[in-house]
Amino acid sequence: MGLNKPFLDQISQTKPGKNNLITDVPGVTVGHQTLVTDRLKTGVTAIIPTKNNVFEHKLAAAGYVINGFGKSTGLVQVDELGTLETPIVLTNTLSVGVAYNYLVKKALAENSEIGLATGTVNSMVMECNDGAVNNIRNLGVTEDDVAQAFSSAGKIFAEGCVGGGTGMCCYDLKGGIGSASRQIEIDGQTFTLGALVMSNYGYVSDLDIYDHQLGNKISQLSEYNKRDEDGSIITVIATDIPFDTRQLKRIAKRSSVGILVLLLVMILGR
Amino acid sequence: MGLNKPFLDQISQTKPGKNNLITDVPGVTVGHQTLVTDRLKTGVTAIIPTKNNVFEHKLAAAGYVINGFGKSTGLVQVDELGTLETPIVLTNTLSVGVAYNYLVKKALAENSEIGLATGTVNSMVMECNDGAVNNIRNLGVTEDDVAQAFSSAGKIFAEGCVGGGTGMCCYDLKGGIGSASRQIEIDGQTFTLGALVMSNYGYVSDLDIYDHQLGNKISQLSEYNKRDEDGSIITVIATDIPFDTRQLKRIAKRSSVGILVLLLVMILGR
Amino acid sequence: MGLNKPFLDQISQTKPGKNNLITDVPGVTVGHQTLVTDRLKTGVTAIIPTKNNVFEHKLAAAGYVINGFGKSTGLVQVDELGTLETPIVLTNTLSVGVAYNYLVKKALAENSEIGLATGTVNSMVMECNDGAVNNIRNLGVTEDDVAQAFSSAGKIFAEGCVGGGTGMCCYDLKGGIGSASRQIEIDGQTFTLGALVMSNYGYVSDLDIYDHQLGNKISQLSEYNKRDEDGSIITVIATDIPFDTRQLKRIAKRSSVGILVLLLVMILGR
Amino acid sequence: MGLNKPFLDQISQTKPGKNNLITDVPGVTVGHQTLVTDRLKTGVTAIIPTKNNVFEHKLAAAGYVINGFGKSTGLVQVDELGTLETPIVLTNTLSVGVAYNYLVKKALAENSEIGLATGTVNSMVMECNDGAVNNIRNLGVTEDDVAQAFSSAGKIFAEGCVGGGTGMCCYDLKGGIGSASRQIEIDGQTFTLGALVMSNYGYVSDLDIYDHQLGNKISQLSEYNKRDEDGSIITVIATDIPFDTRQLKRIAKRSSVGILVLLLVMILGR
Repeated sequence: MGLNKPFLDQISQTKPGKNNLITDVPGVTVGHQTLVTDRLKTGVTAIIPTKNNVFEHKLAAAGYVINGFGKSTGLVQVDELGTLETPIVLTNTLSVGVAYNYLVKKALAENSEIGLATGTVNSMVMECNDGAVNNIRNLGVTEDDVAQAFSSAGKIFAEGCVGGGTGMCCYDLKGGIGSASRQIEIDGQTFTLGALVMSNYGYVSDLDIYDHQLGNKISQLSEYNKRDEDGSIITVIATDIPFDTRQLKRIAKRSSVGILVLLLVMILGR
Repeated sequence: MGLNKPFLDQISQTKPGKNNLITDVPGVTVGHQTLVTDRLKTGVTAIIPTKNNVFEHKLAAAGYVINGFGKSTGLVQVDELGTLETPIVLTNTLSVGVAYNYLVKKALAENSEIGLATGTVNSMVMECNDGAVNNIRNLGVTEDDVAQAFSSAGKIFAEGCVGGGTGMCCYDLKGGIGSASRQIEIDGQTFTLGALVMSNYGYVSDLDIYDHQLGNKISQLSEYNKRDEDGSIITVIATDIPFDTRQLKRIAKRSSVGILVLLLVMILGR
Repeated sequence: MGLNKPFLDQISQTKPGKNNLITDVPGVTVGHQTLVTDRLKTGVTAIIPTKNNVFEHKLAAAGYVINGFGKSTGLVQVDELGTLETPIVLTNTLSVGVAYNYLVKKALAENSEIGLATGTVNSMVMECNDGAVNNIRNLGVTEDDVAQAFSSAGKIFAEGCVGGGTGMCCYDLKGGIGSASRQIEIDGQTFTLGALVMSNYGYVSDLDIYDHQLGNKISQLSEYNKRDEDGSIITVIATDIPFDTRQLKRIAKRSSVGILVLLLVMILGR
Repeated sequence: MGLNKPFLDQISQTKPGKNNLITDVPGVTVGHQTLVTDRLKTGVTAIIPTKNNVFEHKLAAAGYVINGFGKSTGLVQVDELGTLETPIVLTNTLSVGVAYNYLVKKALAENSEIGLATGTVNSMVMECNDGAVNNIRNLGVTEDDVAQAFSSAGKIFAEGCVGGGTGMCCYDLKGGIGSASRQIEIDGQTFTLGALVMSNYGYVSDLDIYDHQLGNKISQLSEYNKRDEDGSIITVIATDIPFDTRQLKRIAKRSSVGILVLLLVMILGR
């Protein structure tokens, strides 16, 4: 990744939350459903942003698109209204509709007023194309799989080749889900900022860790599937700092510059 | 609608295409599936933009969001890449996932390279909330219904309370699907611009037609369901004028000012 | 303008503020400098948004661009930071730099910390091209003229062919500055929303007032200079409703649909 | 800057243009006016994008705002029309109006039709706050200074503490103007992409070059003025690859991620 050791050391000295996970942010839980069969290498990750009914107690939210070569749902309304009203589901590109349907049914089950006393619900589904590892044409993610991701959600969750990250590639090696958190002191009060990424980009030749060009060494050991897409990444940031939506959007926008760093924080955080 | 007769006359004097429908634009066809049962008053409208395989032969496209209180899919990628690669489906808000799934399966069936030799596919689904007439909580739109809309597509199609418009309300009266087209001469060559709208907004008191305040008169005859949302409208514009995506975005943006006029063109066009 | 009498009557029944001017919003004052000589038919309008030092006491603000064929300054920072830190100056297109320089010098004079203890200042200047009436190539607006607009500012100000509106055309007739205000009751508290527009667009044939096609009649009386540009309009909206910047941006965006109505409110308001 | 040596070596192996300057792009010339007196440490840089009259022969262009805490002029129209119609001037924040006035007068002098047969002109002025080194309150940049920058323009130009970069700080050390170019082969044809940056950001502790933490060592030698702003940077990219405005915008957007790399390319390029 081309960041040098002193810089990495500097970053890693900042103080993580209890588990160095996005779930260190109060109320946030995460669950996975991992699908590895002969036909499938894919999955679903659910990010539940609050213990409350999020449709009733909407959260301030903002999105920012780094590279719009993606098929997410929900960002348009978040831009307009500045609120999140469902959990966030991460899965493969062609399963967005399945996750959307699950979120709709979950919201209807939990909120009898939807479509009657109130309007409808804005489902948040983010995706990357896991076609380099998974035969994405098999589809195969079901609404039950999404339900499983939700029912497994907790404060502690696996990272790496799990959930929505099951089929992801990063630097032409195995990619997946990573998370980290940091504690920030403001006016004597401690807040937490957490991140979860689903990473699916990069060329092996760019992989340097702690000044070791591991990528080039690895690339001499074996061949790599060249991927069709430039790659993509989903970064979800959560915090209990009371930002408004304009401020949240500025943070989201700047995360595009911070991705390299974010990934390294996670590697170093272990 | 508050536009006066001379202005309406002026608008209606411009020259429509053969059928005064969006399908007057070469290659465009439209089909509906209308669902009216005890449980459902909803449906699906499919707008097929070209005779060709649109995934192989992508079309220049642009979107513009007037009021982002909506749950469409596909706009983010259209903004980034400036191309349309599936037909456009209009349906009710909670059926977006179903339509998304149909478009994915259709694209996979027609393009064996998707997910293998190429990336994935960006499904375009637009929606309005038809909850004022339809019990949207019943869901009930199926992938077969979307398929039916496609198989019924042609140059001639019904307007009004059909397809995606089945459950729509406009000015607290029955809304639905409307379409119109106009011919435009540029450098001696004749081009066509067509529009299709799914209208779902407005208060009866604002309904004036040809200087007659029909809305107020109607409102004295009966009661109206007050709707939960401010209402919404989907406007799809098609043309064979060779615009680039920046120019198309400017047209889309300006259609927000033109909605009143657009609807009236359609009324007068009959 | 094509809006019919009943609709206009309906609009005009809403309750204006004391003077039916943007200055009905507490703290807002407006001043003009009108330049009519052999060489010039142009001017400057200053909108002062608060009695306080606006650099020290920044106001929540948002901008929205309807048609970006314009040369304003300051909108980029308003989008980023959501605050207004200078008054707003309206003038002709080629005098934007002069107005910018005046606002910089005014801010430096009033705020000794600018450029030392704080950052710099974001000058807000909006413009329309008054070249149809004014020989804009003569430039001729000076920083003193901008100063005069400020020193003449008050609660009562002229409308029509004055200040920045001196050289404007509307519907191929004389355009200029117009303003209006409305009172809005929310939870038993009365708020004011005021608007000021500098109008510079439209074709005479589109001018209908109270169902009379005055434009067409007028056009038979004389010839008109066809203008080079599609025309433009600046709409400034002020309110004491405590909106945040996201909400203010939604209002600004919707004003593009409301321009017809806004102008008529002003005509009817007299 | 935290990029490691192997990565820097890899970047520096790509092939620069003849002079490794933005002026390697055909038609582009650059000139500076440097103002260093008791009162001033500031200046002006002019980037002339073509040998032709750019108002008559507009160029495809796009802008992207990384951090909108800035006072540029011209970006709004570039977004709308996708064209550049003046050269680009870089100077200090409070001199934007002066540069704007110069560009207006230059365009009027060269184009007798402006304001008569055509519309007006959209002046492009970009700025950073050089208040950390320059007493920006002194203003002092004149239209003659801007003229000097234009008259000195050529294919070879100085980098570093010159022109608009005279007062800039980078990593709490002296910043300024840097430039580089790279040759790109597409379908057997060689194109050039050039960049010019005016850099004005960063903390000394982040300055690492070739794995040496020079910043920390330097910081032990002396004190630094803490700056009020987070800093800023202007990146101007020019190319003869025939991109449309949508593609140019994607490149501009991605340059925000590339800034670290871009600066290093320039250091290594010498």
